[in-house]
Amino acid sequence: MIVGTEWLVDATGCDGDSLRDLEALRALFDRIMTELALIAVGQPVWHRFPSPGGVTGIVLLTESHLACHTYPEYGIATFNLYCCRTRPDWAWDDRLREALGANRVIVRVIERDTGDLHITPDNSNYITELRGKQ
Amino acid sequence: MIVGTEWLVDATGCDGDSLRDLEALRALFDRIMTELALIAVGQPVWHRFPSPGGVTGIVLLTESHLACHTYPEYGIATFNLYCCRTRPDWAWDDRLREALGANRVIVRVIERDTGDLHITPDNSNYITELRGKQ
Repeated sequence: MIVGTEWLVDATGCDGDSLRDLEALRALFDRIMTELALIAVGQPVWHRFPSPGGVTGIVLLTESHLACHTYPEYGIATFNLYCCRTRPDWAWDDRLREALGANRVIVRVIERDTGDLHITPDNSNYITELRGKQ
Repeated sequence: MIVGTEWLVDATGCDGDSLRDLEALRALFDRIMTELALIAVGQPVWHRFPSPGGVTGIVLLTESHLACHTYPEYGIATFNLYCCRTRPDWAWDDRLREALGANRVIVRVIERDTGDLHITPDNSNYITELRGKQ
């Protein structure tokens, strides 16, 4: 039985300053939630780690949860979006390039499936090499 | 580059009452954090959904985050533990049987890896599908 879908998103080549920018990350969460019509339960919780560390954010959703962790020292940001309601794929690659300057975004889509296990081999499970930035 | 390890844990056959029992779930979080020496950032956030729904809980960690979602109507609980510090495997199977009455526990261990992708076979039941997309 599938109880939810989880997107594990790992972005590299990001701009370090963006990964420390709490307002930019809040705006990114807002955009994800708005564009996927996700409903927050309470307020997101954010924590900024001491330099050179990054930011952790998480928000409970009626659909499950959204989390991010940033590693400005490596130019990396990771996201988890867990939805127990069917949602379309989000344009992680375009959006993370725009918001964080990512040059490579890996999206893995995993069904939270208590029977047979599979990682969905459809067009939402992919590696995207973004062009135009090295 | 591996920036963290994530355990995706899906338990079935759980006792429905346990999956609605906020105190039991809090105690389970405490046990996970204590036994793995994880450090909370702030307090866990919990939300109980209207019946027949279950409970969502999440806590930020200095190591990243721990989350759970329960589905008492189906006897299912799912957990995410994301650690950017190397941690040993936890005895999810034994502990979830004990705490929630689970009769089947699937553990997937996924490296948050911005290069090559790997999924470690924990319960030896896994499929990785990955393909490039242009």
